[in-house]
Amino acid sequence: MAEEFTVTPWEVTGKIDYELLQKKFGTVSIDEKLLKRLEKYGEIHPMLRRGIFYSHRDLNQLLDKFDKGEKFVLYTGRGPSGNTHLGHMMPWMFCKWIQDIFDVPMLFQMTDDEKFLFQDLTLEETRKMAYENALDFVALGFNPEKTKIILDTENIKTLYPIALKVSKKITFSTARAVFGFDNSTNIGSIFYTSIQAAPAFLPTEEAGKEVPCLIPCGIDQDPHFRAARDVAPGLGYPKPAMMYCKMFPGLGGGDKMSSSDQNATIYATDGPKAVKKKIGRAFTGGRVSVEEQREKGGNPEICAVFMYFFYMFEEDDAKLNERAERCKAGGILCGECKNELTSRINVFLEDHQARREKARGIVGNMTYDGFEWNKGGE
Amino acid sequence: MAEEFTVTPWEVTGKIDYELLQKKFGTVSIDEKLLKRLEKYGEIHPMLRRGIFYSHRDLNQLLDKFDKGEKFVLYTGRGPSGNTHLGHMMPWMFCKWIQDIFDVPMLFQMTDDEKFLFQDLTLEETRKMAYENALDFVALGFNPEKTKIILDTENIKTLYPIALKVSKKITFSTARAVFGFDNSTNIGSIFYTSIQAAPAFLPTEEAGKEVPCLIPCGIDQDPHFRAARDVAPGLGYPKPAMMYCKMFPGLGGGDKMSSSDQNATIYATDGPKAVKKKIGRAFTGGRVSVEEQREKGGNPEICAVFMYFFYMFEEDDAKLNERAERCKAGGILCGECKNELTSRINVFLEDHQARREKARGIVGNMTYDGFEWNKGGE
Repeated sequence: MAEEFTVTPWEVTGKIDYELLQKKFGTVSIDEKLLKRLEKYGEIHPMLRRGIFYSHRDLNQLLDKFDKGEKFVLYTGRGPSGNTHLGHMMPWMFCKWIQDIFDVPMLFQMTDDEKFLFQDLTLEETRKMAYENALDFVALGFNPEKTKIILDTENIKTLYPIALKVSKKITFSTARAVFGFDNSTNIGSIFYTSIQAAPAFLPTEEAGKEVPCLIPCGIDQDPHFRAARDVAPGLGYPKPAMMYCKMFPGLGGGDKMSSSDQNATIYATDGPKAVKKKIGRAFTGGRVSVEEQREKGGNPEICAVFMYFFYMFEEDDAKLNERAERCKAGGILCGECKNELTSRINVFLEDHQARREKARGIVGNMTYDGFEWNKGGE
Repeated sequence: MAEEFTVTPWEVTGKIDYELLQKKFGTVSIDEKLLKRLEKYGEIHPMLRRGIFYSHRDLNQLLDKFDKGEKFVLYTGRGPSGNTHLGHMMPWMFCKWIQDIFDVPMLFQMTDDEKFLFQDLTLEETRKMAYENALDFVALGFNPEKTKIILDTENIKTLYPIALKVSKKITFSTARAVFGFDNSTNIGSIFYTSIQAAPAFLPTEEAGKEVPCLIPCGIDQDPHFRAARDVAPGLGYPKPAMMYCKMFPGLGGGDKMSSSDQNATIYATDGPKAVKKKIGRAFTGGRVSVEEQREKGGNPEICAVFMYFFYMFEEDDAKLNERAERCKAGGILCGECKNELTSRINVFLEDHQARREKARGIVGNMTYDGFEWNKGGE
């Protein structure tokens, strides 16, 4: 019997059945045919090959338009409720890849209002966290000429008129059905989805003509964009195309890296010692003793350490498979994998943290400031 | 049996029982004792003497603070859905009187977002109408140094953080109970009350200390400010004090001048001929024939023309009473009253329209633009 699971923009719990979720949400598998098509634009990203970005809406239509010369705008975002962790950066890295191969402009929304409304945080806290998170985003190396950061409370004058149009088309009934709201939900939270929809429609508003939009993000965000897509035609906006990824796993073996369990989460600002300690404690598919593991082998399928290689720290498929086979054959012990993962994460983070410091000098210039930002993409 | 009536911020229908409404809303009569107290600050305004501004919340507490040297900020507003009519200007004139006798700063909110959300209007239409309405407000002669106009979509960056705080404290349950929302209400309308609350709390946010606020407006707006007052203490804001007026009567004898019935409504931009025609058709308390009226007298209590003298065009109580007595005694005919009212309205409007043209040069400078506007009041 399937375990219970919940996936909403504000709650991800249980063992997620991603196929079932796709069926429930009504999204479409990124299949072999679509991967073949994507190959035309550049070498397929490991997150696509491995089915981490596994589901979509209207990607073919977006590519049809692209093939006819219509550039799209990339859009993703972050709810700044805590420090950035690897799970947050995963879809941003994917966006960077999309920006590189398609050479398109990108909007990054920091939803400080959302996190204020849905969590026990002040606006000062969420704004401050937005700045910190933005450094991690910028550090990934997006094209600074074509990438703009929207901070909701900062850029609200731009977002609000679009959000008003969206909100006028969504009834409480719909919001309740899509998001599971009830009578005790605050009225800011009820309105909020309109604000998250706005950047998807902003390029069209700015250009005065339909500009396609592609939103790569976690599949937990689908309720927002389902609602946005439903109202788009009535407002003269194109429906945004979607690419959805699975949740980055937690070190405790859970289905999603959580900001709240600090020991099972690798933050972008973690030092080498913290990483070593956290990976050292990670849940693995190992046996109770070295002898048993040598004899019976480990189980990479349930192993958080293996998942980290799979999601982010081993891009070479052959080497990844080799690691799995060696594990199952008892040829490699958990300590070895942990040491190697620790070392790879630390190399990555050392580099990231250096770029993160440099980002302090750039991030201010990347604040969304009007109608010229996407000219580079035309 | 009492006639049915409805009074909400978006609908006023039926014969309003103002005493019952006050009871229903839980507001308090402006009684003789309070009028005596108000006399200390300046000659009592006819709208107070005549019970047009008839109900309040916490006015005594506001005056207590004023007496101790704490100046308050005045705040009222306008939903720009059509041309300004006399009914809109009535509470603004009252605000002008309050500003003059207390020498206090004033915020005027133009809710272009509200009218977009609740009516079949575009944002472009409501913004344009806001500009036109603002001219009528400015023409009334507010102190330009101490009066600032907030246009919601223009000043949203200032309003939004306050609105977010308000919205986080109001559940859908509460909004439904206060405003009568249902499942078909759009999510922008549900959120909107937070935006209307924001200017009441803005002076406190700006000053970094509690600044009292007084809101004179139609009693139909009480649901908004009831909600705002409920959440204020939890946010560290003082509850705004309220002064409520009755609805300005329509020329057709109805209870509220309506923007939609153009023939029963005197607009701020009406020319002398239009006024003459509209007043000529007004509902009166006259008899079917001159002879009958001379014999039995008319009924000023149901007469729209008399109401216009009462509400705005005869400030002298003795002369007003004399007019009523002469009418009841058959000493004056409807035509005479209509001619005199027409002439008074036209004198008022000619003057108003000249000041309205001058307002075009001032209105831009009165846009709310930051934290210094209320320094003049300190």
